[in-house]
Amino acid sequence: MKSHTNFDWQRQDRTGVPEVVFAQNKSTSQLRDIIGAHQDAQQPLLLTRLTQAHTDGLADLPLQLDHTARTATFAAQPLPQNAPKLAIVSAGTSDLQIAQEVLVTARFLGLEAHHFPDLGVSGLWRLQEALDEVRRFPLVVAVAGMEGALFSVLAGLIRAPVIAVPTSVGYGVATGGQAALSSALASCAPGITVVNIDNGFGAAAAARKILSIGS
Amino acid sequence: MKSHTNFDWQRQDRTGVPEVVFAQNKSTSQLRDIIGAHQDAQQPLLLTRLTQAHTDGLADLPLQLDHTARTATFAAQPLPQNAPKLAIVSAGTSDLQIAQEVLVTARFLGLEAHHFPDLGVSGLWRLQEALDEVRRFPLVVAVAGMEGALFSVLAGLIRAPVIAVPTSVGYGVATGGQAALSSALASCAPGITVVNIDNGFGAAAAARKILSIGS
Amino acid sequence: MKSHTNFDWQRQDRTGVPEVVFAQNKSTSQLRDIIGAHQDAQQPLLLTRLTQAHTDGLADLPLQLDHTARTATFAAQPLPQNAPKLAIVSAGTSDLQIAQEVLVTARFLGLEAHHFPDLGVSGLWRLQEALDEVRRFPLVVAVAGMEGALFSVLAGLIRAPVIAVPTSVGYGVATGGQAALSSALASCAPGITVVNIDNGFGAAAAARKILSIGS
Amino acid sequence: MKSHTNFDWQRQDRTGVPEVVFAQNKSTSQLRDIIGAHQDAQQPLLLTRLTQAHTDGLADLPLQLDHTARTATFAAQPLPQNAPKLAIVSAGTSDLQIAQEVLVTARFLGLEAHHFPDLGVSGLWRLQEALDEVRRFPLVVAVAGMEGALFSVLAGLIRAPVIAVPTSVGYGVATGGQAALSSALASCAPGITVVNIDNGFGAAAAARKILSIGS
Amino acid sequence: MKSHTNFDWQRQDRTGVPEVVFAQNKSTSQLRDIIGAHQDAQQPLLLTRLTQAHTDGLADLPLQLDHTARTATFAAQPLPQNAPKLAIVSAGTSDLQIAQEVLVTARFLGLEAHHFPDLGVSGLWRLQEALDEVRRFPLVVAVAGMEGALFSVLAGLIRAPVIAVPTSVGYGVATGGQAALSSALASCAPGITVVNIDNGFGAAAAARKILSIGS
Amino acid sequence: MKSHTNFDWQRQDRTGVPEVVFAQNKSTSQLRDIIGAHQDAQQPLLLTRLTQAHTDGLADLPLQLDHTARTATFAAQPLPQNAPKLAIVSAGTSDLQIAQEVLVTARFLGLEAHHFPDLGVSGLWRLQEALDEVRRFPLVVAVAGMEGALFSVLAGLIRAPVIAVPTSVGYGVATGGQAALSSALASCAPGITVVNIDNGFGAAAAARKILSIGS
Amino acid sequence: MKSHTNFDWQRQDRTGVPEVVFAQNKSTSQLRDIIGAHQDAQQPLLLTRLTQAHTDGLADLPLQLDHTARTATFAAQPLPQNAPKLAIVSAGTSDLQIAQEVLVTARFLGLEAHHFPDLGVSGLWRLQEALDEVRRFPLVVAVAGMEGALFSVLAGLIRAPVIAVPTSVGYGVATGGQAALSSALASCAPGITVVNIDNGFGAAAAARKILSIGS
Amino acid sequence: MKSHTNFDWQRQDRTGVPEVVFAQNKSTSQLRDIIGAHQDAQQPLLLTRLTQAHTDGLADLPLQLDHTARTATFAAQPLPQNAPKLAIVSAGTSDLQIAQEVLVTARFLGLEAHHFPDLGVSGLWRLQEALDEVRRFPLVVAVAGMEGALFSVLAGLIRAPVIAVPTSVGYGVATGGQAALSSALASCAPGITVVNIDNGFGAAAAARKILSIGS
Repeated sequence: MKSHTNFDWQRQDRTGVPEVVFAQNKSTSQLRDIIGAHQDAQQPLLLTRLTQAHTDGLADLPLQLDHTARTATFAAQPLPQNAPKLAIVSAGTSDLQIAQEVLVTARFLGLEAHHFPDLGVSGLWRLQEALDEVRRFPLVVAVAGMEGALFSVLAGLIRAPVIAVPTSVGYGVATGGQAALSSALASCAPGITVVNIDNGFGAAAAARKILSIGS
Repeated sequence: MKSHTNFDWQRQDRTGVPEVVFAQNKSTSQLRDIIGAHQDAQQPLLLTRLTQAHTDGLADLPLQLDHTARTATFAAQPLPQNAPKLAIVSAGTSDLQIAQEVLVTARFLGLEAHHFPDLGVSGLWRLQEALDEVRRFPLVVAVAGMEGALFSVLAGLIRAPVIAVPTSVGYGVATGGQAALSSALASCAPGITVVNIDNGFGAAAAARKILSIGS
Repeated sequence: MKSHTNFDWQRQDRTGVPEVVFAQNKSTSQLRDIIGAHQDAQQPLLLTRLTQAHTDGLADLPLQLDHTARTATFAAQPLPQNAPKLAIVSAGTSDLQIAQEVLVTARFLGLEAHHFPDLGVSGLWRLQEALDEVRRFPLVVAVAGMEGALFSVLAGLIRAPVIAVPTSVGYGVATGGQAALSSALASCAPGITVVNIDNGFGAAAAARKILSIGS
Repeated sequence: MKSHTNFDWQRQDRTGVPEVVFAQNKSTSQLRDIIGAHQDAQQPLLLTRLTQAHTDGLADLPLQLDHTARTATFAAQPLPQNAPKLAIVSAGTSDLQIAQEVLVTARFLGLEAHHFPDLGVSGLWRLQEALDEVRRFPLVVAVAGMEGALFSVLAGLIRAPVIAVPTSVGYGVATGGQAALSSALASCAPGITVVNIDNGFGAAAAARKILSIGS
Repeated sequence: MKSHTNFDWQRQDRTGVPEVVFAQNKSTSQLRDIIGAHQDAQQPLLLTRLTQAHTDGLADLPLQLDHTARTATFAAQPLPQNAPKLAIVSAGTSDLQIAQEVLVTARFLGLEAHHFPDLGVSGLWRLQEALDEVRRFPLVVAVAGMEGALFSVLAGLIRAPVIAVPTSVGYGVATGGQAALSSALASCAPGITVVNIDNGFGAAAAARKILSIGS
Repeated sequence: MKSHTNFDWQRQDRTGVPEVVFAQNKSTSQLRDIIGAHQDAQQPLLLTRLTQAHTDGLADLPLQLDHTARTATFAAQPLPQNAPKLAIVSAGTSDLQIAQEVLVTARFLGLEAHHFPDLGVSGLWRLQEALDEVRRFPLVVAVAGMEGALFSVLAGLIRAPVIAVPTSVGYGVATGGQAALSSALASCAPGITVVNIDNGFGAAAAARKILSIGS
Repeated sequence: MKSHTNFDWQRQDRTGVPEVVFAQNKSTSQLRDIIGAHQDAQQPLLLTRLTQAHTDGLADLPLQLDHTARTATFAAQPLPQNAPKLAIVSAGTSDLQIAQEVLVTARFLGLEAHHFPDLGVSGLWRLQEALDEVRRFPLVVAVAGMEGALFSVLAGLIRAPVIAVPTSVGYGVATGGQAALSSALASCAPGITVVNIDNGFGAAAAARKILSIGS
Repeated sequence: MKSHTNFDWQRQDRTGVPEVVFAQNKSTSQLRDIIGAHQDAQQPLLLTRLTQAHTDGLADLPLQLDHTARTATFAAQPLPQNAPKLAIVSAGTSDLQIAQEVLVTARFLGLEAHHFPDLGVSGLWRLQEALDEVRRFPLVVAVAGMEGALFSVLAGLIRAPVIAVPTSVGYGVATGGQAALSSALASCAPGITVVNIDNGFGAAAAARKILSIGS
């Protein structure tokens, strides 16, 4: 194996979540080394934040690509029977990319994830129509950019804990996701915890750990 | 009259809103000069952002004090018949001070203002119960601190334009009102315009101008 | 209809402003779905923040494009007789893009909008020459970047309320529009309310709601 | 009951967490009204962020005060048998205040909470000595200010999910808790979710909801 | 002389401006040492940013105090015949303190300074009435807080260069003077240069150097 | 003339500085209109912040281009005899672009400008060697990025006033020029005034006005 | 010993620097516990950032207080023969407090520290006069607030490495020490490393470790 | 030699570190001039932050390029016998670029540098396995982005001083390296000093000066 990376094969045992590779600042050649090592070790692998250059340069490898989520998986396990359930609620069409990163990661980690898209609160009836169904899930990941009002409204309406993923969708004061992040952290509704802007992977990993409690 | 202030007696004629005195950075002695000049000119006067030291030092003058709003008025006109109506919706007990500044200012400027307190969205039923009554008003000033989710939810539910007043209520990322301000500006719900943090006076003045259209 | 978008056809009835599509973070293929749905439903449609890639990819559709405003409209209604009037005042040549977004949106929403360009206050005579004409309008949208001094000067000279649109035109401390936004919010002149940086659509939507009061 | 507050008695049923009163921006007189209403309704009550002036002004009431946590409780329920367990790990002596707010809140909400103080990572052996005991808990709230390195190190060593509470302890670049907040959100260790700076109540409420999953 | 301070007696010769003492972070005892050294050396002295504690502790010394400007002078020279002239234009009553610091410093440095107070642009006629008189001065220091629109408007109307002093008067987005500073720096009107927020001394010192050109 | 621009031909008479066109946010076609209007009116013209696309698109016009300064001039006047002198001192090779913008603008406005390059203070002997020559100029524009220490050191060594131009050269905490701007504004050395980051034009325009005093 | 603190007695052996207590966020009663534990263990102790309330509350204990440095020491060791030498260079009278914290800490850690006060670069001759003496030290800690130009100038003149301590002395853009911190980090002069704003202790601890290399 | 650059050939003698050229804001043509001058003077040269355009444009010159570090060297001296030793510890694969800039610079300056890659603290065993070897070095440069927890953990485990290099690797709150920079500065572990984000050169230069003490 190449010298630039020091694999943490025991992470799954130690923390309950395997190592996942954040591709954004890595070269395609570094990614090929990492994929090769996992093939050799017959370990499942998830790559997130792939750029177009990455997917072009990895096209010959036996990976499952998801272009919306910008992810690739290798040797993912099938979902177990009675896998824990996770709801993903997103606010707008522009948040689909990150919601899909949550979905792909959650399934890779063994959760049965379901996505409720386009439930932004400026048309509150959309959220209200979906509420009965959302309430059947033990845990919800909420994905929203702009002003992030979805986080507070949703958490005030359901019993499940909410993991908020602010997205970098927005302009002006919402540029880069700061307004949505602040809304999530400052929310008056109890039961919300927050991950970094656009960190769909992190939300799914926390969901995996939370839904493993008691098992 | 003292040399430090140059009164803009024509402001009412020119802009439709009389000069109002922002007391915060002024000495009690400067305020006494200003009040005296208005008494001499028999002009109505509103003072905002009075400190405890101000109200102590002005106690001998014939002013109407409002301790919640931290305002004083002098020679305010009675409300005209058929005065335009303004709804004020606030999110939490902590926002009362600014909501009251909107109320006092609006009445000073000739609006019939009504306050709906404590309608924060983490308990959405409170807003929903009040909605039919709020919808009877042609214009709404919304007052909220923390994450300011009220602005988006309210504007998505009513036809009236909404003037958002973010308040400095909050801590951590909400310190000083930045999170609520960003939420108001970044809101996905159309029809919201925004004034500076804690600027209850400004919201009432804009409301006065808006409700004068056509008259 | 595709699953990624959940149309809010009732928004016009509920809030007085129809759903308008912010194109910036959407793919051309998502936009085509949205346009198709509106064609099928025979609903008028406005798209804002179109990129060059969007306009290239939508060239075959029966849309009315405005390249300065970066908008497209479909099946817009003709202006009614006695449509309410809106003045748009902009500061510099660089602010034309956003001023035009206000203009196109206002007309789409049924307002008779007129644009007064290039009235920045560093040459105050330009604004003073236009003032008599501007004063005939019941409501003014002001568009300015850089230091945004136009907002205060204009609001101090007219009776109409002013909706300020700070623009992202500028460099150094004005990068991204923060200086103009702060000027608009901190203005000493009463009657100014503010929308997000570059949010020409939001200003027009608020104007539509304000000018519907009493109707 | 007084008009300034609109109690959300159903919040417990709707969201699993009862209304808790954030005292910081409220007057002692408002707090007395709130306490009275809960006494009349025979509802348990938790007040957080009490100031010295508050505790002086409420001294005659039958409340259980905690001076470190700056909280007061009324009519709290005894812990049920087999209450879910929560570990609280804090970094330094200066973080005790917030850690205690987590502890008091968690017990008020029915959790059996245990506090491991002073486990900052600049002396890593302290954390390592406590690790076997910490690993027995299904969920951990970590409390740290300054640079917040505890969050990453802890989450890399245990299987339980970690709720990070950054504290405002610090100076220079750590003033107000921004450095610790950024560390928590940017952490490379999966399974961390975050609440607002100093939001001990929020962490305990999220813990309550997470530990109710499946029950 | 005490060891904590290393006087720069040659600064007057080297730079044209004598050493002036910024009192804010110094103890009264340090100030007494500094004053004593100047008395011994028979050197004129200006102290700026005196606190109430300072003025109380220095009451027995032969200093000329200015309570508005928070300054003290010792052995200041009388103004020479034909001293260069400086105009100071300030925006609001709240900016008087800093305008007075400019005035006292300018006179200490040998300029004949005149103050035009309360010319804020929300009542533009005030500035326009004073304009003919202001235009007689070769150099103008402008002092404004809040949104700082005065800087652009003034510089667009006169031939003299303008030194802008943003003040920390304001709240919300104008807290600490950031909005006024950004307005001054981002101004479209040519001929404006800027000093730090509240730096009345710095503006007067630069004025002294500018008005010494050619002499 | 086209409708998008409203020329301020009187600006030269009113303020002493003619209108100069900031090209950055304008289209090539807008620039051609502006240039044509000046050709028709036989008015001299300076364009700043030209992009590569601009210079390509204007190649057929009789303009004098300066590629380092990114400027174009048309019909500039020859320098008068006894033109006032201006020194420009810059810190590093990377600051040349802005220093050259100062130089070209100053000459266009009738100043005899001389540039002293590469005098950064990390090799203080370079500045000291040039000091005797710099001291012969009545006014100095200093141009520096990174930490901007040049401003303080230079102003402490000469009698002339210093106009500081912070540049956007830098990375990390110096990204965008914020560190250099703060250094210029916070400098302890009296006599420094500051313009916006990269605003070479503004420094030259202020220099022109300052050097016109008394003429 | 009390339960709130978990002493790291081995830190001296493990890292070369004993545990030092940062008093700022601790109660006097917590400090008394800590001091008692060190008395019992006969361990030397340094307390930094003592408030007035702390020193009043600890007056009965056998501590060596330094009021300028706001420190207390207990059972400090005498300086060894041939202790390594450290120079401390500070910019202004206002920086004395932090410079003294460096001095006291360095001596507590076994360094022979010498302080050169008031060498700010706006009067460069002061630094130049002291330079020969400063050059005799193998390591220099530089302490400066405001614009922090001292860091770059000093590091460009000497061979020794420089540890920069930005101080929170300043106002406007220098408030809290941000300008000085940015200057230190962005400096063009090689050999500078930086500690947190006002972190005199940290600079002395790093100096201790650096001067232990090879021993 | 060309006029744009003023070489500081004496810097090596004066400060112990030769002039190194930061290429980022320079044109290829300016770099060719600089390289030519060093060839003529037979002086060794290091260029950092080369872009792809630079390396393409310098391909014909006898330089030693390092594509990971983005550096070029000319006429570098061979390492002396008994060169001082430096350890470089980096956190993740994404930090390799900056770690390599430290390595190349350190060797150019005469240090025997060794790189320990991929020792991020979310898998603490990796750092613990390497610890015995790292402890053999007298000085450590630590390179980390994201939340920068490595700095505190490492400095708490070793006796050597640590120079922290925060990197711009990250997204959301870690964008541009601010989170890692704050973690480094706010660290509770004594002995850490910090350089600017991504400033690998600066860390190596400081290391060179520190390891020259006593020689």
